[in-house]
Amino acid sequence: MAKQKKAPKPKALPPKGFRDYFGADVSERTEMLRQISDVYHLYGFEQLESSAVETVEALGKFLPDVDRPNEGVFAWQEDEDWLALRYDLTAPLARVYAQHRNDLPSPYRRFAMGPVWRNEKPGPGRFRQFYQCDADTVGSASMAADAEICAMLSDTLERVGIARGDYIIRVNNRKVLNGVMEVAGVLDPTDPEKFAAERGIVLRAIDKLDRFGLQGVRQLLGAGRKDDSGDFTDGAGLDDAQTEIVMGFMQALGATPAETLSNLRALVQGSAIGESGVDELQEISDLVTAQGYGTDRIMLDPSVVRGLGYYTGPVYEAELTFEIKDEKGRTRQFGSVAGGGRYDDLVKRFTGQEVPATGISIGVDRLLAALRMKGRVERSALGPVVITVMDRDRMSDYQAMATELRTAGIRAEVYLGNPKNFGNQLKYADNRNSPIAIIEGGEEKAAGIVQIKDLILGAKLAKDATLEEWKARPSQIEAPRGDLVAQVKQMLAAQGLTE
Amino acid sequence: MAKQKKAPKPKALPPKGFRDYFGADVSERTEMLRQISDVYHLYGFEQLESSAVETVEALGKFLPDVDRPNEGVFAWQEDEDWLALRYDLTAPLARVYAQHRNDLPSPYRRFAMGPVWRNEKPGPGRFRQFYQCDADTVGSASMAADAEICAMLSDTLERVGIARGDYIIRVNNRKVLNGVMEVAGVLDPTDPEKFAAERGIVLRAIDKLDRFGLQGVRQLLGAGRKDDSGDFTDGAGLDDAQTEIVMGFMQALGATPAETLSNLRALVQGSAIGESGVDELQEISDLVTAQGYGTDRIMLDPSVVRGLGYYTGPVYEAELTFEIKDEKGRTRQFGSVAGGGRYDDLVKRFTGQEVPATGISIGVDRLLAALRMKGRVERSALGPVVITVMDRDRMSDYQAMATELRTAGIRAEVYLGNPKNFGNQLKYADNRNSPIAIIEGGEEKAAGIVQIKDLILGAKLAKDATLEEWKARPSQIEAPRGDLVAQVKQMLAAQGLTE
Repeated sequence: MAKQKKAPKPKALPPKGFRDYFGADVSERTEMLRQISDVYHLYGFEQLESSAVETVEALGKFLPDVDRPNEGVFAWQEDEDWLALRYDLTAPLARVYAQHRNDLPSPYRRFAMGPVWRNEKPGPGRFRQFYQCDADTVGSASMAADAEICAMLSDTLERVGIARGDYIIRVNNRKVLNGVMEVAGVLDPTDPEKFAAERGIVLRAIDKLDRFGLQGVRQLLGAGRKDDSGDFTDGAGLDDAQTEIVMGFMQALGATPAETLSNLRALVQGSAIGESGVDELQEISDLVTAQGYGTDRIMLDPSVVRGLGYYTGPVYEAELTFEIKDEKGRTRQFGSVAGGGRYDDLVKRFTGQEVPATGISIGVDRLLAALRMKGRVERSALGPVVITVMDRDRMSDYQAMATELRTAGIRAEVYLGNPKNFGNQLKYADNRNSPIAIIEGGEEKAAGIVQIKDLILGAKLAKDATLEEWKARPSQIEAPRGDLVAQVKQMLAAQGLTE
Repeated sequence: MAKQKKAPKPKALPPKGFRDYFGADVSERTEMLRQISDVYHLYGFEQLESSAVETVEALGKFLPDVDRPNEGVFAWQEDEDWLALRYDLTAPLARVYAQHRNDLPSPYRRFAMGPVWRNEKPGPGRFRQFYQCDADTVGSASMAADAEICAMLSDTLERVGIARGDYIIRVNNRKVLNGVMEVAGVLDPTDPEKFAAERGIVLRAIDKLDRFGLQGVRQLLGAGRKDDSGDFTDGAGLDDAQTEIVMGFMQALGATPAETLSNLRALVQGSAIGESGVDELQEISDLVTAQGYGTDRIMLDPSVVRGLGYYTGPVYEAELTFEIKDEKGRTRQFGSVAGGGRYDDLVKRFTGQEVPATGISIGVDRLLAALRMKGRVERSALGPVVITVMDRDRMSDYQAMATELRTAGIRAEVYLGNPKNFGNQLKYADNRNSPIAIIEGGEEKAAGIVQIKDLILGAKLAKDATLEEWKARPSQIEAPRGDLVAQVKQMLAAQGLTE
């Protein structure tokens, strides 16, 4: 019989666009999410963990802000049903609320945190599985719900370690833009589909302000814009008067909320929807101001357009304002870490009923990256105290040391590799980033002592110590076996490490 | 043009076998996992969070303990690759270790917690997404690694709230069974495939001890067994002498570890593999005993067969020994909440290299259910203090109260539904399980006071109070507005609730 061909070995790689998180990367995220939970809980929000898998039918098979309505999710057929991994935490909230609406409190304040999956082309820093952290209030049409979300977001950012002054929450309102465009006579609000398409073009033009400046946006609203390479981008086709009205919206920011509101009110005069949008902004502004949230934390800002296309009323965006260097070494602001707004058709797909809802989503990875940049997350990658194995027949002795240290709350472990080569044991302790190694050979055992090696001081001395320093601070001490825990504690304290 | 038919509304349900977790169900699990993490971390283990999605190739497309090798996972095709949701946390560990083995410390102690997915027929209490919590040591062949896992499991159970005496960790060894069968002449260890099949039959027979007793197992090992209904189950076909040797294995438990080991040693005499298995058990027993873990916490138990088929050396199982009523009202022990063992071919599929590994998996849902039964988890489903809205133009006043309470660390919220019907507001507070409601109408505002309603006392009085009690403890008090926080704190304290 011919020898059967062996199957080739599988590749030890995750699928493209997926990654693993090790040690401190996991624990730091967990800790940040715990702090966020604390704030949300304090505000009366209840956690919800829905299943990662939904029916495609319930999910709606579409992504917000994505042009490809049938793509973007990981989906597969199971018996008669098509199932898919959730692409965000809002679509599952809609399903859960529709399913349980008779038992849930109304309004329902809920928060959710967990991974979501997007079937998109992966790229540098762009993964197909990432964390989201959402808070939403379902069933309240009150602007107090929106104001509360903004205040809670401010508290949350400060709780995790973003200092006041290093962030700003900007608030805008979709209805104001609609009103502005109605007044400009750009489009007919009675034809919602055409309205939506035109609004999209105008929004994309406004969103280019950072890149092209006022003049560039003006061209994009009008006849079009030719860039430096000679490429031409079609414009929205607004006439000059119309263009100026839209430009006025972008530049309506005043020195105070009252001035901003007054500028906006002038722009939307005569449009019922626009005036209602300004009223909503006024109400949010009054509420957060009364609660002590000044414009250094929460401000009205008509130039915020992200989300205006998707949401139906107020929108909010949290930006970190401190400066960082981008990949090309240029200085820029850190930018957005959270955003949200009001969307009043959350469960309509399921029940036919309009249910008002408003909420935010925090970009977990971006916020964590910001905290690391600001040094607000202590890299907790410190390893355990490593008890080396000098005599493999005395594992019980070494385990007893580990137990004593752990009982005192000190992270500790016995080396479990092949103990033959002592150098490997120290290399292991180094790889673990261990602060201390313990050594007890036969001689020490007989004399009732242990060697306690300060690995952090040792590394420092090896690098740059003078002879005097070597003598003054030995990196290894001998101590009675009975003093092990006390001596380790003292050494950790000297290292400035709190276990 | 004919009117287009509307698509039917999607069903507001998760896929079959999936469920949602609300409020305290999530936070209690999170808290339990945090406590488990603390213990694992103290032992020097590092957290790993691998991606939920793996290639089918890397996953191995098989489930342990499942007879259908090609089923059991949710899989789909993505470009050329087949992807799947992980079905446990061990297969991803193998992939991660193979991928990163040059950078990871050796041995590598890691823990992982998170959802896994099984494409199995759902049933009552059987879900297709559930949590696992694993700890493994990869790269150590030392029995000290196994002893450490057992000790850590014991510490973990006590840390989350299982009292000493309410659990037992049983340890057995697959090599001992192999040795027993070799001595019995049941099978030829040089033919591994036949060996594995025969061992499976013997294991299934032994595993029936609880249901059929010694006599039933004896029949299943021999010619076969007829049950009360007359149905006949084929036996393993062992002769009487062989059967008695296997029965001896099951009954080898002695009064002390030394006696158990001596019984086992007699049974495997002459089998190299068997003797090596007994040596391993001896080593584990010595190590945990020296660390102070008596047989009330960790014991050798030759009757533990679960996992014997899957693992290659020591196996362990944690059982909760307190009694509960099953669904039919019968008293029985709570049973297994964690299990594991040594498996030395973890990464061989990827690298060709044998890497020794040992570890445990905790059944998160079962352990949490046990803690709830024992009252060790405080159902933290208490709602926030609800500030009712008597005058919708004064939302700022109500929000200010919420802010004051939160600043004092008290969970609080303003009612955000339609305030018109005050009864609805109290119904809402009831649905939220709120301890206290705050009321400030126009009169109170003018008088500078607030009403503070004790909802828990109110519910109690409404149920069973005498007239005297009603008078002695009013469930609603009037307090100066400035005393709001102090009065709420006092009322919460009187309710025995610590926020």
